[in-house]
Amino acid sequence: MFVYYNGQFLLKEEVKISPFDRGFLFGEGVYEALRTYNNKIFCFNEHLKRLKFSLQQLNIPFNNFSNLENIIYKTAELNNIKKAFSVYLQITRGSNFPRTHHYEETIDPNIFLYVNPIKDHTKELNDGVSVILEKDIRWLRCNIKSTSLLPATIANQKAFLNNKYEAIFFRDNFITEGSHTNFFAVKNGKIFTAPLANYILEGVTRSIVINICKKNKIDLREEYIRVKELKKFDEFFITGTTTEITPVVQIDDWIIDKGVPGKITRQIQELFTELTNQSI
Amino acid sequence: MFVYYNGQFLLKEEVKISPFDRGFLFGEGVYEALRTYNNKIFCFNEHLKRLKFSLQQLNIPFNNFSNLENIIYKTAELNNIKKAFSVYLQITRGSNFPRTHHYEETIDPNIFLYVNPIKDHTKELNDGVSVILEKDIRWLRCNIKSTSLLPATIANQKAFLNNKYEAIFFRDNFITEGSHTNFFAVKNGKIFTAPLANYILEGVTRSIVINICKKNKIDLREEYIRVKELKKFDEFFITGTTTEITPVVQIDDWIIDKGVPGKITRQIQELFTELTNQSI
Repeated sequence: MFVYYNGQFLLKEEVKISPFDRGFLFGEGVYEALRTYNNKIFCFNEHLKRLKFSLQQLNIPFNNFSNLENIIYKTAELNNIKKAFSVYLQITRGSNFPRTHHYEETIDPNIFLYVNPIKDHTKELNDGVSVILEKDIRWLRCNIKSTSLLPATIANQKAFLNNKYEAIFFRDNFITEGSHTNFFAVKNGKIFTAPLANYILEGVTRSIVINICKKNKIDLREEYIRVKELKKFDEFFITGTTTEITPVVQIDDWIIDKGVPGKITRQIQELFTELTNQSI
Repeated sequence: MFVYYNGQFLLKEEVKISPFDRGFLFGEGVYEALRTYNNKIFCFNEHLKRLKFSLQQLNIPFNNFSNLENIIYKTAELNNIKKAFSVYLQITRGSNFPRTHHYEETIDPNIFLYVNPIKDHTKELNDGVSVILEKDIRWLRCNIKSTSLLPATIANQKAFLNNKYEAIFFRDNFITEGSHTNFFAVKNGKIFTAPLANYILEGVTRSIVINICKKNKIDLREEYIRVKELKKFDEFFITGTTTEITPVVQIDDWIIDKGVPGKITRQIQELFTELTNQSI
């Protein structure tokens, strides 16, 4: 399998990350996960915009984006991937020796990316998934898409070991987001999701859902969902680049509405699919 | 320069960390920093105990410690280091492909370590350092010595760019600790430092200071120091394996007692030096 690293297409076994890469030593990197529809990278500009924001927040001086889309397509081509694929892209600050928390601002960032075939939204996801609720113990800049992800992987692994798809975080009794998804709840036809702040990532799919709702006059409010009031809601779904729009049919032990995805959720899914079908 | 990676002594340029190492992708690793006095690793067992705690908290199944001390000495020997050296040791969960937040529990951890000559406590440190106060935005398991260190490096870099040695964190108006040190304050001959909790690391040097105080009947209290009451204190110092006992003579713009290290701080320094001189 070919991947891309710092200007070269290499077999994945050939890539040599230095142990002094600050991504390895300090989780000091940013990333994006993208995917294609109809053989075209979906929402490339939105992902790029967020990547630039993350880099700027961490003061990582990487700005060589002009050829990035081509590099992604070339990586897919080298792997003979003809159908849908996902893209993982990571930029770390670079290496300094010896290891110190601080660094000279002249060090060169490292960029790594790979692509991987993906299936269409699986039946499993489409039927709805189970999630667990977990206390949000992450840092207070979750709006930066950084690779210091330990609390997210701990929570997701807990879900995985319980045969659940995702862990949904709450902080001070308010739902923030999932370990790698955004979270939505529906009550009386109105959709709710946490507002943008330093507690959540501005998900690209989250923004699409908001735009879909605007366009179709569906009432969506960026307001916190209280954990205590969860049972007052009718439907739930989560969103993400690979998760797309996935119904949530169970939260911890609570099976929601007999485990059948809700009407509004299905409507958002249809509108989302329409949009991705249109994308060229 | 030779380093150690997964059973091999390699030139540092030869080490090949996989881009799928979860330390690189997720900051999913733990570490320790050690040092020698009198050609012997100082407090090896204390560091090992903490390392085991961190590994256990993250469920990383690494347990091959029997030869670790020898490996460290051998690494120093290969580099012809005859005097004092520091040791950096990191264990990551291992690699999984493709990248997913969750993982199979069968993956093999990766261990990396290197040693580096160090000087005696520098005059610069001994004269006392300046620090900045920073809001503690880290995750809520700071008692685990993990490599998801982004908020710590951001804060330390801010200090560095302002020619300060360290950033001291406060959370809800209480001082927690520094980005890579523990923090102590002295008032009327009594020493205060934040109590053990999930907000701070149990520093090895912190524990030594506590023991020194017990032995020498110096009044030390593990109680939070309020940011608002900082100016009521007479002296400050920070501790760490390489920081040792370092006086703090300036906090933000406030120059403490004309910038001269305090009497109790000097006493702790002396008792600490006595201890390290004794260590064989």
